[in-house]
Amino acid sequence: MPEISEQEYSQQRLQQVNEALGSGMFVYVRKLLQSMPAYDLALLLESSPAKSRMILWQLVDADDQGEVLEELSEEVRKGILKSIAPEELAEVTEGMDVDDLAEVLRTLPDSVYQEVLSSMDSQDRGRVEAALSYAEETAGGIMNTDTITIRPDVTVDVVLRYLRLKGELPESTDSFYVVDRHDRFIGAVTLATIVTTKPDVVVSTLIDSDIEAIAADMPDTDVAQLFERYDWLSAPVIDEQGHLLGRITVDDVIDIIREDAEHSMMSMAGLDDEADTFAPVVKSTKQRSVWLLVNLCTALFAVSVSSMFEDILGQLAILAVLNTLVPSMGGIAGNQTFTLVVRGIALGHIGDSNAKALFTKELSVGILNGVIWATLIAGIVTLWRQDIMLGAVIGFAMMVNMMCAAIAGVAVPLFLKKMKIDPALAGGVILMACTDVVGIFAFLGTATLLLG
Amino acid sequence: MPEISEQEYSQQRLQQVNEALGSGMFVYVRKLLQSMPAYDLALLLESSPAKSRMILWQLVDADDQGEVLEELSEEVRKGILKSIAPEELAEVTEGMDVDDLAEVLRTLPDSVYQEVLSSMDSQDRGRVEAALSYAEETAGGIMNTDTITIRPDVTVDVVLRYLRLKGELPESTDSFYVVDRHDRFIGAVTLATIVTTKPDVVVSTLIDSDIEAIAADMPDTDVAQLFERYDWLSAPVIDEQGHLLGRITVDDVIDIIREDAEHSMMSMAGLDDEADTFAPVVKSTKQRSVWLLVNLCTALFAVSVSSMFEDILGQLAILAVLNTLVPSMGGIAGNQTFTLVVRGIALGHIGDSNAKALFTKELSVGILNGVIWATLIAGIVTLWRQDIMLGAVIGFAMMVNMMCAAIAGVAVPLFLKKMKIDPALAGGVILMACTDVVGIFAFLGTATLLLG
Repeated sequence: MPEISEQEYSQQRLQQVNEALGSGMFVYVRKLLQSMPAYDLALLLESSPAKSRMILWQLVDADDQGEVLEELSEEVRKGILKSIAPEELAEVTEGMDVDDLAEVLRTLPDSVYQEVLSSMDSQDRGRVEAALSYAEETAGGIMNTDTITIRPDVTVDVVLRYLRLKGELPESTDSFYVVDRHDRFIGAVTLATIVTTKPDVVVSTLIDSDIEAIAADMPDTDVAQLFERYDWLSAPVIDEQGHLLGRITVDDVIDIIREDAEHSMMSMAGLDDEADTFAPVVKSTKQRSVWLLVNLCTALFAVSVSSMFEDILGQLAILAVLNTLVPSMGGIAGNQTFTLVVRGIALGHIGDSNAKALFTKELSVGILNGVIWATLIAGIVTLWRQDIMLGAVIGFAMMVNMMCAAIAGVAVPLFLKKMKIDPALAGGVILMACTDVVGIFAFLGTATLLLG
Repeated sequence: MPEISEQEYSQQRLQQVNEALGSGMFVYVRKLLQSMPAYDLALLLESSPAKSRMILWQLVDADDQGEVLEELSEEVRKGILKSIAPEELAEVTEGMDVDDLAEVLRTLPDSVYQEVLSSMDSQDRGRVEAALSYAEETAGGIMNTDTITIRPDVTVDVVLRYLRLKGELPESTDSFYVVDRHDRFIGAVTLATIVTTKPDVVVSTLIDSDIEAIAADMPDTDVAQLFERYDWLSAPVIDEQGHLLGRITVDDVIDIIREDAEHSMMSMAGLDDEADTFAPVVKSTKQRSVWLLVNLCTALFAVSVSSMFEDILGQLAILAVLNTLVPSMGGIAGNQTFTLVVRGIALGHIGDSNAKALFTKELSVGILNGVIWATLIAGIVTLWRQDIMLGAVIGFAMMVNMMCAAIAGVAVPLFLKKMKIDPALAGGVILMACTDVVGIFAFLGTATLLLG
């Protein structure tokens, strides 16, 4: 065991590879890459700037390239796929798992896609086409077809003899699926049950009722929830008539969970959750410009609110100096509520039945927050400028904005969810617009009334 | 299969339970709860306000309470544990997995903890104490002790007979561990290998070299990375002398991955990643006040920068109106870079070897962003106020702040990581302070020089 952490170890190897690459020691780099598992090769490619990334890819052993493609994040994979000729692609993708291959094919332009498909043998093509017939983010889209099926009337002894004959099981096999002669799913028998049962027992009596079949059109996030609920290692996938189509394994579920959890964080910054850390400059700038444009609009809206108060701002320059304080605090408080609610929605904690309780709680937090911070800021401003009226004005505005932040922090994501818009993506900017506008309005409006 | 999604289904059941609870139909609620798996009960408790949460907990079957505790998030669990008497707690925790039990015990006050320990039988106590001797976020802290060990010199047939005698395997068992007579770990043999091998083969020839033993003091995030790298379902844990201590299963790893991914998002808003959605008002307010206080300090710092320019603000009220625009755009651009870097660090993409490449890339994006948005805003302001100098001033400030946002967006998280401070937690507020202060300074400073 190395004494350093896994991350430092990855970074050291990355440095080693980059140095060797920089000095043109390609043979040595190729040797280094050969000793690395596909997961690490994918990490290495994802951690490399575009230029060295393509060189590294060329140096990866052709036999490993398929597996590396499986492990890569979508955007990085797309970039690499673009550089591969269709004939070569068919070779690279040979032996890939059906689910991963389907994912790769989905990202290809139509012409290339057809060429790759037609270069495959008919059995593989059939499997991939079946996987492609389901939407990407469903059980059918992430399943594999490498299941082991058994008939209900055979004994454990027969199963064991069959397995010994087979000599090898598909990766992550923890259960077998019992099907009737029309390939309809009857139930699952775990490997653990097989090895702990007497040889003469009939399989149909061993079915594990905890393992349910998953409908092929179930959304992948629901699949992940089922895996977490029952601590499954794998689960069978069936079509509407109950025919066994394939199985989903826990490693695919881990990918879904990771992507899901990252999604909220990246969306809040207006980024794609598969964004490439080392994307080309122009591409990055383009991707980020949408969000900046939206923010420009809301910021200009806030400016137009401020401009309604140009007179009082001209009379009292101190108002201009303090004008950022109330929106800033409201923005932070609102963002806290908003983040909690977005996570709560993602985890399935929040829905119609408890929205009211959540609202009451957050509004109470907002009022309490308002009292605390309004008092504090009013005190600071009064002492600083020796002006109790100014202190009262900013304290009042802070109180109003803290309550607005709490209301918007709950209402905006819940409303967006109702409208079937991703709250994490659109919510932050709407919330910020609310707290900015209300903050400015409350502060400068009250100031106009009381100090003007 | 229900036609509705898992989440809607959970929400419907939640509503059903709440309505029954509201009408005092406790017997019916108890019956409903009995039919739900522990994962769903935990979700239900997490989705309930404090008041009904305690009533629901009382209605959960005593035999299920231990399992439910295992599934609950930390903060919610703590709240429930507080309400349980120590004697009762010993009963509830009976039969819990060692890793989960250790986690529960860690959160208890010392006196209760001792009482629970002393009420356990000596074998269980020994196991729990072993687990407690490792830090919480290490392999030793998350392992279970329910391994199946075999000797290297037995045959497959002997193993099978032993398993049949045992009659049941621990949950998620996909491999057995071969140990010498001093309990030192030799290697792992997968269940799949056992069932596909002839009965007379000796176990020592079947060892799977892909399964490495994990050192008990390895950080849990490293453990998760190893599981992802090799698609393990479980892995053995050893001490420094190579003795087998226990095993880690993939369901524990899923929890780590989820927590890790949520951690960044929650930290960025200054929230704890285990935060209870329905925490009591005063507790929530307290937890959030740290972050608001930090923000108040940086906001006051920004105000003090503005106050240096009180003269020019008094002369030209339009500067006060426009003063929020540059910091706002810089904040968004900086946050995009920052979020990308924080995620990159979490995924292990970013380290010393490629920090420079990342820096160059983000600075280029910042410059390009600067040119685009400076031009646009300068144009808008010039047209609006018919003042080309004012447009030039705000355009220049925008350019400067976009570059500053890119530099700070990369430098702040990398610097914090070097200092061993969590970048996600402290970074956002530092970054915001940078873009606010630089934005105000660039805008009002240039305005003083050119328009004053």
